[in-house]
Amino acid sequence: MLRPAMSQAVAPFPVVDHQRVVFPDGLALDCGAVVRPLVVAYRTYGTLNADRSNAVLVCHALTGDQYVAETHPVTGRPGWWESVVGPGRPIDTDRFFVVCANVLGGCMGSTGPREEMTDAEGRGLGRPWGTDFPLVTIRDMVRAQKRLVDHLGIARLLCVVGGSMGGMQVLEWAAEYPDAVFAAAPIATAAHHSAQNIAFHEVGRAAIHADPDWAGGRYWETGRVPAQGLSVARMVAHITYLSEQALTRKFGRRLRGASALTFLEDVFEVESYLRHQGSTFVRRFDANSYLTITRAMDYFDLAAEHGGELANAFRGTRTRFFVASFSSDWLFPTSESRALVRALNAAAANVSFVEITSDKGHDAFLLDEPDFHRALGGFLRGAAERVGV
Amino acid sequence: MLRPAMSQAVAPFPVVDHQRVVFPDGLALDCGAVVRPLVVAYRTYGTLNADRSNAVLVCHALTGDQYVAETHPVTGRPGWWESVVGPGRPIDTDRFFVVCANVLGGCMGSTGPREEMTDAEGRGLGRPWGTDFPLVTIRDMVRAQKRLVDHLGIARLLCVVGGSMGGMQVLEWAAEYPDAVFAAAPIATAAHHSAQNIAFHEVGRAAIHADPDWAGGRYWETGRVPAQGLSVARMVAHITYLSEQALTRKFGRRLRGASALTFLEDVFEVESYLRHQGSTFVRRFDANSYLTITRAMDYFDLAAEHGGELANAFRGTRTRFFVASFSSDWLFPTSESRALVRALNAAAANVSFVEITSDKGHDAFLLDEPDFHRALGGFLRGAAERVGV
Repeated sequence: MLRPAMSQAVAPFPVVDHQRVVFPDGLALDCGAVVRPLVVAYRTYGTLNADRSNAVLVCHALTGDQYVAETHPVTGRPGWWESVVGPGRPIDTDRFFVVCANVLGGCMGSTGPREEMTDAEGRGLGRPWGTDFPLVTIRDMVRAQKRLVDHLGIARLLCVVGGSMGGMQVLEWAAEYPDAVFAAAPIATAAHHSAQNIAFHEVGRAAIHADPDWAGGRYWETGRVPAQGLSVARMVAHITYLSEQALTRKFGRRLRGASALTFLEDVFEVESYLRHQGSTFVRRFDANSYLTITRAMDYFDLAAEHGGELANAFRGTRTRFFVASFSSDWLFPTSESRALVRALNAAAANVSFVEITSDKGHDAFLLDEPDFHRALGGFLRGAAERVGV
Repeated sequence: MLRPAMSQAVAPFPVVDHQRVVFPDGLALDCGAVVRPLVVAYRTYGTLNADRSNAVLVCHALTGDQYVAETHPVTGRPGWWESVVGPGRPIDTDRFFVVCANVLGGCMGSTGPREEMTDAEGRGLGRPWGTDFPLVTIRDMVRAQKRLVDHLGIARLLCVVGGSMGGMQVLEWAAEYPDAVFAAAPIATAAHHSAQNIAFHEVGRAAIHADPDWAGGRYWETGRVPAQGLSVARMVAHITYLSEQALTRKFGRRLRGASALTFLEDVFEVESYLRHQGSTFVRRFDANSYLTITRAMDYFDLAAEHGGELANAFRGTRTRFFVASFSSDWLFPTSESRALVRALNAAAANVSFVEITSDKGHDAFLLDEPDFHRALGGFLRGAAERVGV
């Protein structure tokens, strides 16, 4: 019954050479700290046109990264949104210049817990930030992206688009930089994180904290990573990404072996699947980043940032909004999108809303959902025509 | 950021002197093993009448026990169903003789992983069963209860009642011993465990397995219990017991302190609550029992036991059924109760069904729900009148 050891060697710093831009003056965060320098790792797809009017910023979700539409450098698997971003896809890279940045606090090259800690003057301290990395907010993530977008010479984004935590960033973009966002597509998201979502995140964090290999966050000193804790965190999160229908359709109560009445692990197919999800995740994701980013999501409350009234976040906006939810998503249910649409209506914003019928749960925004792809593609083409791209 | 150590001293065997009955011949289990002797710890409330016709068997849920309507000997807290069982309560102990047994595989005195392991002749081996305890099923639990009921001289129970896993036992009683069950009240339950429910259980088991203090299940040798792993298991389970509405009403996004942007733990009240739930649970519950009982629930599939057709489990039954669900229960949703009612109808059984409107989630069956209490009390009084109690 002993679990196989899941410890893995870990280099003190990442070995992948990500494309990055360094801002030596750093970034002042909501919590009062300054990270200096600010490093933003990013990828682009397609070509920026002459008047720089065809840029689409894609914002990634909790465990996503900047490798949207190409083979992932760590896992070797396809990009996480290749069904949506690429030549002839809804976000057509033959027409649009697509940018995606690893979020601040992430673990794929942007400033975050796994990168080298710096002092107030920006000097490297020879060890990772780890849990000394300051608390970041969704707004901080968006501020870092704004620096990148400015660096690329783009005054106005044709569209900012993202699902889940990516959608939170879209909303923050529209609220903070309305003149820089012609169109915004927050998908399968909400204007705040619910008590239930906070609770599920807390379970994941507790599992990481409980892993002795976490070592108070200083696991680079031991050469081991908290693989079991991070794996449990991923397992519970993964359940919330799927619908009950999707789990039942995929696995039902199917057994892995012929004999049911054994006490082996992974008796049911769904268990084996979850364990696989957990164990593959730890190969690509940093536990301290997971703690940092889940906290950022938990803190997100756009209404609270605007005097307690969500509509205030969008007063006077000229941005066009496309809000989409999925009928079986219980993590970010349609009711959250409706609340967002009501606030946008109250702010007299230009908004279209669609609930996509799907039994795939929250994950639907990442999967093959033709109705969603048609709706998003149509919205983007309409925006492009209006701008003259 | 280091979590405080949660290790606790643990005696090799429990110290509470539970009321028990010992069956020296033991019990043959579905898995083929025999546990010998079989010990059933139980409590009774009220008085058995002269013709032994007023007995109500209460079946407890995953983390419940036999202390239904009295102060718990370990926690010192009220019994888990005092709102339902007691003088003048829906299950009126002035009128009925109430019996509740700790389930086989449990940790409150019945044969289970925390009790002393025995050999084939029933001789004690001087150490707990631990993970050598054989796999048990819901049907095995019910067989053990049947031995107790026979021992008490009760040929027919007026009613078998229970919620959640208790409801699974009710269904198994009605299917296995129809002539011994005049009335059956399966509440907030289902005739099988769903893929999503299996998945949540698997997260809990993975968290226990991941705790080094679990020590391959032999934690009595170290004097420590896998408190952190069991606590994480309890936390995730607890989320599933509550509705999103209940969590939001109880906690919303309220912060524990004045300042939001700190990186302390338990920033939100919901986190503090969950951690408290986890840490109090480990004081009263055995991790190996948790593994054993969750597995029993996962395996439960009454239709599969009856040729794949749920109605077959109840063909020819004369038992009266009272099926109840709660509108915001997403762990055992109303759709599962409806499927059960359809099967009972197909078997021409006498069945009444009620969905109680409640925003308290799965936990509602344990809480103050007057409509539920009235319905259950009415059903039981009707059965009693028919029997002439």
